[in-house]
Parts: sequence; C-alpha cells; structure tokens
Amino acid sequence: MTAFSPEIQVAIARTRDDVARLHEELVRYELVVWTGGNVSGRVPGADLFVIKPSGVSYDDLSPENQILCDLDGNVIPSTPGSDRSPSSDTAAHAYIYRNMPEVGGVVHTHSTYATAWAARGEAVPCVITAMADEFGGEIPVGPFAIIGDDSIGRGVVETLAGHRSRAVLMQNHGVFTIGKNAKDAVKAAVMAEDVAKTVHISRQLGAPLPIAQSAIDSLFDRYQNVYGQEPTGALK
Amino acid sequence: MTAFSPEIQVAIARTRDDVARLHEELVRYELVVWTGGNVSGRVPGADLFVIKPSGVSYDDLSPENQILCDLDGNVIPSTPGSDRSPSSDTAAHAYIYRNMPEVGGVVHTHSTYATAWAARGEAVPCVITAMADEFGGEIPVGPFAIIGDDSIGRGVVETLAGHRSRAVLMQNHGVFTIGKNAKDAVKAAVMAEDVAKTVHISRQLGAPLPIAQSAIDSLFDRYQNVYGQEPTGALK
Amino acid sequence: MTAFSPEIQVAIARTRDDVARLHEELVRYELVVWTGGNVSGRVPGADLFVIKPSGVSYDDLSPENQILCDLDGNVIPSTPGSDRSPSSDTAAHAYIYRNMPEVGGVVHTHSTYATAWAARGEAVPCVITAMADEFGGEIPVGPFAIIGDDSIGRGVVETLAGHRSRAVLMQNHGVFTIGKNAKDAVKAAVMAEDVAKTVHISRQLGAPLPIAQSAIDSLFDRYQNVYGQEPTGALK
Amino acid sequence: MTAFSPEIQVAIARTRDDVARLHEELVRYELVVWTGGNVSGRVPGADLFVIKPSGVSYDDLSPENQILCDLDGNVIPSTPGSDRSPSSDTAAHAYIYRNMPEVGGVVHTHSTYATAWAARGEAVPCVITAMADEFGGEIPVGPFAIIGDDSIGRGVVETLAGHRSRAVLMQNHGVFTIGKNAKDAVKAAVMAEDVAKTVHISRQLGAPLPIAQSAIDSLFDRYQNVYGQEPTGALK
Repeated sequence: MTAFSPEIQVAIARTRDDVARLHEELVRYELVVWTGGNVSGRVPGADLFVIKPSGVSYDDLSPENQILCDLDGNVIPSTPGSDRSPSSDTAAHAYIYRNMPEVGGVVHTHSTYATAWAARGEAVPCVITAMADEFGGEIPVGPFAIIGDDSIGRGVVETLAGHRSRAVLMQNHGVFTIGKNAKDAVKAAVMAEDVAKTVHISRQLGAPLPIAQSAIDSLFDRYQNVYGQEPTGALK
Repeated sequence: MTAFSPEIQVAIARTRDDVARLHEELVRYELVVWTGGNVSGRVPGADLFVIKPSGVSYDDLSPENQILCDLDGNVIPSTPGSDRSPSSDTAAHAYIYRNMPEVGGVVHTHSTYATAWAARGEAVPCVITAMADEFGGEIPVGPFAIIGDDSIGRGVVETLAGHRSRAVLMQNHGVFTIGKNAKDAVKAAVMAEDVAKTVHISRQLGAPLPIAQSAIDSLFDRYQNVYGQEPTGALK
Repeated sequence: MTAFSPEIQVAIARTRDDVARLHEELVRYELVVWTGGNVSGRVPGADLFVIKPSGVSYDDLSPENQILCDLDGNVIPSTPGSDRSPSSDTAAHAYIYRNMPEVGGVVHTHSTYATAWAARGEAVPCVITAMADEFGGEIPVGPFAIIGDDSIGRGVVETLAGHRSRAVLMQNHGVFTIGKNAKDAVKAAVMAEDVAKTVHISRQLGAPLPIAQSAIDSLFDRYQNVYGQEPTGALK
Repeated sequence: MTAFSPEIQVAIARTRDDVARLHEELVRYELVVWTGGNVSGRVPGADLFVIKPSGVSYDDLSPENQILCDLDGNVIPSTPGSDRSPSSDTAAHAYIYRNMPEVGGVVHTHSTYATAWAARGEAVPCVITAMADEFGGEIPVGPFAIIGDDSIGRGVVETLAGHRSRAVLMQNHGVFTIGKNAKDAVKAAVMAEDVAKTVHISRQLGAPLPIAQSAIDSLFDRYQNVYGQEPTGALK
C-alpha cells in the first residue's frame, strides 16, 4: 500500500464517507435502477479519487467498499475495496479529473428524462428559471461515444469546457454532471433530471415561452453568488 | 432581541413548529427536490412570519432553524435561526403578507406539472370537479418576474387579489399558493400540482369536457362551506 | 345508542378495522392526496355501513374514528366517531348500498389517470388482458353529477347495474368502484388506475391492438372463477 | 413427500429464500400492483422450480409459502406451501424451464411501460446504450396468447430462443423475462421497464437517433463479459 500522509488519510476517509452516502441521493430521487449510475469524489490535496464499485447493489454500499483510484483510473492496491472492480465508468471519471482540475466530483446516471433527451440528441432548452439558476442556460448534448476508452470522458470535457452547465447529455446514453465536490455534482444530477422532466412535460402540450438571455444571465449570476448559506461562486 | 409578550412568544413557537413540520408535506408529495421550495406562516397577532432557511436540506429542518422575519422580510436578530439566511424567496413572501392581510401562509414550489403549465404561460382550465372545489375555477398565470426585488410578490398579489384561486403559476418559474394559514397554503400547493397533472394528462389524448360555470360556482361554494370537520369559509 | 346484538357488534368492529386499514392502500398506490378519497364497507348482516370521516388526514385514521351510518347515510348517534361528519360522499355510498344489495364495499378516488379519462368523458377500452381479467371489458363513463343529492349515487348505479365492470368513471370527476366487500372495491380502485395509466401511455404513441371479444369473455370467466386461493365468482 | 437428498433440500431452501426475497424488488421498482406479477427460480441440480402462490399479497410472501413444482407445473405434495395454489402463470414458467435448460429464473409482470408497448404489439427499439448492454438489441414482441394452456410459455420460448434479449413483450398482456437465475431474471424485468419507459418518453417529442449495429454488438459483448464483480457471460 502506498504510504499516505495522515492528512491525506483523513481526506480519503472523508471522501469515502461522502461518496458512499451521496449514492443514497441517486436512489432517493429515482435517478438510478439496480446497480446503474455512479458517484465519484476527488480526494482534496491528492491526485486520487474515490468511486463506486462495479455492479454492487445500492443497499450494499459503504465507505469501506468504495474504491480509491489514481487519476489514470488505476485502483490503488491494498486499500479498502481494492479487491473489487471499480465502476465500469471509471475511465471517464478519471479523464474528467485529469483534464478539469476545478472539478471535485462527477456523477453519471441514466435518469429517465435526461436520457430521453439524450436519445434524440437534443439539448434541454432553458425555459424555466430553475434551469437558469442552476445551469445558466441549456443543458448541452455531447457526442455518441462507447465505453472502453477515453472517448466518453473526452466527450464530457469537450462539451462542458467553457460551458456554464455542469450537466451534459451524452447522445443515446445518459447524463454526466460535474461539481466542485461530489455533493455539488449530485445536486447537478438531481436538478438536471428535474428540469429535463419539467421541460419535457411542458413541451408535450405546446411550446414553452423563451426566457430573455439577459434574465438568464442575471438569474445565473445571482444564484451562484447569493443563494444558500455559503454562496460559493460558479464552478468556472 | 426584541422583547415579545408571552402570548406572542407562544404564537411564534407554534408557527415555528407548523412551518418546520409542513415542509415534510412538500417532500411527501414530491413537490420539491434538493433544497428547493419553501413554506412560511404568519405569526397570529404579530407583524411577523416564520420561513425556511435558504439552501438547507429538508432532512435538516427543525422548528429551531426556521427564521423569524418582520413584514419587510428582515430577519429578527438574536432569535433562533437568525444566524442563517432566510429563503431567497423571503421578499416575495413578505410582500404578500404586507399586501394581503387575510393571508396566513404562503408556499412556493417548482412542482413539475404546475411549472410545465407556467413555462407555457398557460392557465390550468377548470375541467375537473376537484379544481372547482378547491380553486373555484382556473389556476391563473402571473407575470414573468425575476428574483431580487418586489416583482415576484407584486405579481402574485396582483394576480390573486380578487381571484378565487389560492394558487398562481408564475410564468417560466413555478407556483405560489396562499392560505388562511401555512397548512391551508400547503394544501393548495398539493392540490395545485395534483390538478395540474390530471388536466395535463387528460389533454394529452384530446380535449377535456368543460364544466358549466353554474356547476363550478355551486361546487366551490359547497366545498368552502360544508366540507371537512370545521368548514371555515373561503379565504376571501 | 341503538342496541346492537353481540354478533352485529362484532361485525361492526371488524368492518371498522377493515375500512380504516384499507385506506392505507389508497395511500400506498398513490390514488389519493391530502384528505381526498374514501372507502366504505357494509356491515355484514345489518343495514349499516362504515365510512371515513370527512377531511381527516390519512395519517390519523383509526377504527375508532370511522363513522357508522345507516343505509340512508345518517350517522348512528352515540357510536365511536359519531361526533364527526362522515365523508362528503356518504350520500353516494348510501345510495349504492341501498340499490345494489350484492355490493359490500365502495371506494371513491380522484386517481390521476382514471380522472384524466373521466375529464374527457371517455371509457377506457379493454386492450390489455389484465383489464379483461378484472373488469371483463371497458371501464365505462357515468354522467356528470354534482355533490349534494342522490345524483352521483344514481349515476354510479345506473352505469354499473348489469355491467361487468366494478369501476365507473364519473364524468369530469373521478372514479367509483364497488366490490363484494371493502377489500374487493379497493382492489378494483387500484386496478382501475393501473389499467387507465397503461392504456393511456400505450395510446400516446399509437393505437393499441384490440382484443377479440371471445378472448375477453374467456379471460374474465377464468379470472373470476379460478384465480387466487379462494375464487369467489363474479360480483354479479 | 418425495424424499429429496440433503443437497437438494439445501438447494430448495435457498431457492425459496431467493424467490421470496426477490419479489420485494418487483415492489420496490413498482413493476407490480396488488397481487399481480410473479418470480420463479429453478432449483439447481433438480427438475424442480419454486414459484409464488396465487393471489397472495406481496406483504405476506415468505420462503415457507413459496410453492415447489416439478417441470410440468405440478405442485410437489406435502411440501411447505403445497396447500395453496401456485401462481396462475405456473404453466408458462414450467414450459420455459422444460424447453430452455439454460434458464434458471423467470419473471412475469404487467409493468406499465412494457405493457404499453405490448398493447400496441410494438417492439422497443434499441436507441439507448443501456438497452444494448442489457438486451443486445430491441425487446421483441411475442404472440397474443391467453392463459389456460401452454400457449403463453410456447410464445415466450419461440420468441426468445436464439434472441439476445432476455425480455419479451407478450402482445396485449405484459412482459416475461428469463435469466441464469431468479435474480438475473428480476434484473431483466427491472431493466426492461426502465428502458421501455425511457424510449417511450424520448419518442413522445420526436424520433430517437439510431445506434449503429456495430456499436450495439460491441456494447452487448462488453457488458456480458466485463461488467460487475463476476462477469458471467451471456445467457446463450
């Protein structure tokens, strides 16, 4: 086992706790079924991240069976959980952490409404103020890319780099979200599905009214800087 | 800390209990996700109201962390919860309490179906008897207004003043409901989403049949005066 | 208080238990919101039925606060719960019990999909085998009728008399179901919403295929006489 | 009672546990209402399977009241549960076990979206990667067949034999899934409904983009051989 400093050991333990617990939010908001979906979190102060094991039931997740990886997606040997395979999406998470240093958390789901837009390759237009608050505009579409190499991670990064949105709809696949930390990425996953659903339902019976760009800008700025107990500023 | 009379202290404590507990109904009926949505309640006998703190998880709400405000939306210093920011919608709630003295509770959500109608700027037509009972006709649409000044509160008041409905769809935004007290406003929020959903689904496969105005009037009158254990009369 | 024989007292107590407990199924299957909806059960061997109190939360229902009525819908004085008003739909339940002696239970809800069909005044066509099993054909539509006299009960009875279906969609209103006992009527309410939802969703993307009448007849006959641990035969 | 070897007795007990417990997943994912739906599991090493009793509430299922049958669907006398009738779909399950020796578990539900496609007699097209992973292509439609003889089982076997999909939509009826064991069949039932729902919703607002056959092949191959902690290879 790599020898980590006491500070890093504490940071790893906290990240394990966060990542394990945050998976419960995916279940609570019905963003996942069976063993699908995954959350990861960067270990602050280290080139490491913690991610869900592959194909394990949400009922059985614990801090101890989350898997510690380096930024190339290699499992750190002889650490808790290292006898298991990490999420089959680990390469995509690793690519994002390597290429977006401001990102501290990544979530991937096949949540129903976000994936429905993704299957049509269609961005969710920003027609409700909650979207302007949270995503600063539309939720964009990334390329079709299949699992097995860097292509999913690269598609996420190329789509989100320089974009206000913390969520991207990967064509025919599902949604990836990023955040300052794992909790922030989970919030983005929850909100992405919520707005994808609301806009879908609105469009079923006609055309939603547009929101002026100036209003979108104003809402996004305010929400990133004023909302909540500790406004933290936009990710980028 | 302002010195409140013992009677007002009791009324504040009861309102804190009610407001904290009533937030659970927003979760139970899936009207909210993450930290979105808020309930407030006027303190009977005082120019005060109690409202949810901003950006706090529904799991963590308690009577003690609800926030006491005056009718201009200022937090009353040195009271429980006053170290936190109140809901970012506090100005809208305060405007409603200042301008509608008959209102004892206000609720705001982005519940899915109500917001879907709001995104199209379209009122929910009164085509089911439960709507006639509860709202006495359509659920109207209020103006597009962004957070940050009195414009949301003013839009709510201008739309609902003189209207039977206790719910208003704020364009591209979500729904505000009012009531005699916080519980009554929460009931209106639950019923608004329920009827917005039912009418949406009905219209997906054709045109719902209209209900004659005389029947709507009769149903509204009866429901406000006969239903339940303590019929209380209409709000206005 | 009317003096009931020991046997009737036992039957009343059992019916109170059943009716109180069966309301939980309406909540479990999300057929109701807030205090809407109601279940009643006939007391075997007596001209009495037990029904939910008006406007009481589902969390607060117990055998003791269910209300005992005669077949004209009058509350039996000095019995548990008799200090409260019975469901505002009591007159409709009473009318059904008076006119359909084979009915031992009645349920009324505004469940979403059933009510959506009802708002268009459109019967649910029998295009899935579960509907053939349970209802023996379409779920028919009853007349528009408003609360306050016998018109709802009369509309239910006129529509269901001689019909295989135990469910009727009351136009612009909601659904009434009947059964051999309260549990059977609750099952019909659960199944009516389930099939109303499935057929609605099927029709959203095209025309469901018809089922031959001979197959519907065969499925209905078998299900009424073979299914379950104690096949009981059709209601009528 | 037939005398079973100690090894078979252990295998029967384990299958009873699995089958009883796996029914909870049908409830958790809302694939069933009331007493509809059923899971069965083949007893490893014996010509036997365990199935749900007919018409019993999901709350009341236990290992002891599951029913042990031979591969003709006959209840094994004097075993736990043998005083009850097995699921009314037992003949279909038995037919599948007799004719597909590689199948160790079967599930039948009327889950909403799968049944909605089935009512139109329309296969779910493979337009999301999760479908390619799990089913290797479309979910096919089987014939209209009514309960009472081998026709349902024969329809399932004829449709799935030689097909990658472990799920079949039986026309106007519902969905049957098969798996290596009962858990694998339940997973297929959960995933079938999930993808049927996502593709339905996607198509409501336009045409989903196709996925190239080569990508479908690649995803299916990888998922069957790499995903999870113990990749097990495709069923066939």
